[in-house]
Amino acid sequence: MNWAVIMAGGSGTRFWPESRQHLPKQFLALFGKKTLLEQTFDRLRRIVPRERIIVFVACDKVTLTRKLLGLPGSQVIGEPVGRNTAPCAVWAASLVMRRDPSAILGIFPADHYIRDTKKFQSALQKAYRSAGQKGMPVTLGILPDAPHTGYGYLEIGRKAGGGLFYLKKFHEKPGHAAARRYFRSGRFLWNAGIFVWRADCLLETARTFLPDIFRGVIRIASGGMSASGVKNIFSKLKGVSIDYGLMEKIPGHILTIPVSMGWNDVGGWASLRKLLVKTHGGNVASGKTLLVESSGNFIKSDKKLIAAVGLRNHVVIETKDAILVCPMEKTEDIRKITASLKSRKLNRFL
Amino acid sequence: MNWAVIMAGGSGTRFWPESRQHLPKQFLALFGKKTLLEQTFDRLRRIVPRERIIVFVACDKVTLTRKLLGLPGSQVIGEPVGRNTAPCAVWAASLVMRRDPSAILGIFPADHYIRDTKKFQSALQKAYRSAGQKGMPVTLGILPDAPHTGYGYLEIGRKAGGGLFYLKKFHEKPGHAAARRYFRSGRFLWNAGIFVWRADCLLETARTFLPDIFRGVIRIASGGMSASGVKNIFSKLKGVSIDYGLMEKIPGHILTIPVSMGWNDVGGWASLRKLLVKTHGGNVASGKTLLVESSGNFIKSDKKLIAAVGLRNHVVIETKDAILVCPMEKTEDIRKITASLKSRKLNRFL
Repeated sequence: MNWAVIMAGGSGTRFWPESRQHLPKQFLALFGKKTLLEQTFDRLRRIVPRERIIVFVACDKVTLTRKLLGLPGSQVIGEPVGRNTAPCAVWAASLVMRRDPSAILGIFPADHYIRDTKKFQSALQKAYRSAGQKGMPVTLGILPDAPHTGYGYLEIGRKAGGGLFYLKKFHEKPGHAAARRYFRSGRFLWNAGIFVWRADCLLETARTFLPDIFRGVIRIASGGMSASGVKNIFSKLKGVSIDYGLMEKIPGHILTIPVSMGWNDVGGWASLRKLLVKTHGGNVASGKTLLVESSGNFIKSDKKLIAAVGLRNHVVIETKDAILVCPMEKTEDIRKITASLKSRKLNRFL
Repeated sequence: MNWAVIMAGGSGTRFWPESRQHLPKQFLALFGKKTLLEQTFDRLRRIVPRERIIVFVACDKVTLTRKLLGLPGSQVIGEPVGRNTAPCAVWAASLVMRRDPSAILGIFPADHYIRDTKKFQSALQKAYRSAGQKGMPVTLGILPDAPHTGYGYLEIGRKAGGGLFYLKKFHEKPGHAAARRYFRSGRFLWNAGIFVWRADCLLETARTFLPDIFRGVIRIASGGMSASGVKNIFSKLKGVSIDYGLMEKIPGHILTIPVSMGWNDVGGWASLRKLLVKTHGGNVASGKTLLVESSGNFIKSDKKLIAAVGLRNHVVIETKDAILVCPMEKTEDIRKITASLKSRKLNRFL
């Protein structure tokens, strides 16, 4: 049967000051009325029934998440610490295996944007079917529409039939020259971090290539352990991703489905701006704003009037206690602000 | 005897959102602990005793001004409407003439910055003396330290002895080329709007060249008129400045004292920034701020933390109800914001 795990344990700082330690990105309604997590959950439900969707979140977000998605405790798992995606995936696979030995497990980031839900769902259906039939992991690869340097890439090789390709190689975020080369070649897809894999195959691969993680997680998933016992084991595991910790170990045995579905990783204010409706001048403006001769900005007012004149390509975000001002091309550096807040022990702003 | 009138009726918008209709620039403590009006008043008191200083303000600022300066009602005059400087100067001259027929009247903007009070005071003393002896208006001309396009200029002619010069011509704000020419020539001084003139000569000149204003103001200054009567007369007067309405009519009969005293008209956030202490990176920052890799900014926080990264040469001002964001070189255009607020009837922000 189809199962899904949503990885919602992240604690990103790229939407500071809107995202905070107590409210990371996936719990924000950055567009629309629902949080990114709810949108991810809703998108999956056509393919995977709600009782077979498991959500991993930081321990202190379990209650919030259960309330948000209306899920029982058995479906919302608290990670005591962040350890990247592989330990979570192994944990999820062991949980579903106990209830369904033939489970096919999809793994999904909680905080991405997908414009075309229909295309996503049909690609995903195909991914579940192929993963079940072939026993190989199937990834969704996004057909790039620009030589983006902010994403990892999937290099595809020979055809595998039915619109699938064998994955040749994972590539890290490229430089500008490489990104242009990738884009021209037509053989490079964006890695959206979406994988579908038979739970038994995933576990078997983990047992072989990540034996420490496998052993630790199996102990945790077998249940009956105290929170501090879980924390004790989990925090000692190595943080490693699914692609590098598991998939790269089985080259030639991974499939990819190229798909064009208006995907965006919502990596920060600059990419969020691209997704939202612009007013005159290409500004995204919400709340009380007054923009004169200003263009290309992302302006978000909480309570106060934000007035700008002659402002070009800046992000201005007002929250209850903070105001961010930053050129659009520097939004990657917002982490320097949170790092500085941390080092000055200004924790109330984190 | 020496008398002074401080013109504090302005309602500038260039310090929006800090300056508002109910609190224009001269009532703000933009640097130091005292308002610009208080600083102007204090600067004069070495030369003119406090009981001979008259302050003109908008009618609704009379109480505030009396409290601020500790002055009796007879020394704080409410203008019912703004009519530029000439009507005020004539009004002031008629008031002081009634008490002191040999009065020498200095006329001072309320909202400028003067770094070197000693030099100001010694130039001013000389101006009062010369104005009294020669019966001609004496202006203070600021020796320029840059080819500024934002100021009017005084072109000086032949020497008049004792370090004074005859004023050849008033010039409006020049373009860049003219400003450079002015600067190189050494014969052009900034017009700081500071004039000293015998009250009787001023009135005589007004009677000749501004007869309507003269007649109207004499009626008002003779007293015993209701507020609405004053308003009725004053609002019908033409708004005209002292230099263009009076002085330009008597060419060859004006004296100028060149002076270098660290003068600045505090014309907006950009010029204010030059006057204030900069932190690392040339930022002026007050309140809770966190600036990472940012330089040349003017950041003022009211309550919230203002955090910036990679921000260059911008003004960010938070007040109780508004936030301004504007490139430093566009601060002249802040009036477009207030104009837009007005046209949208967002009066609470004006």
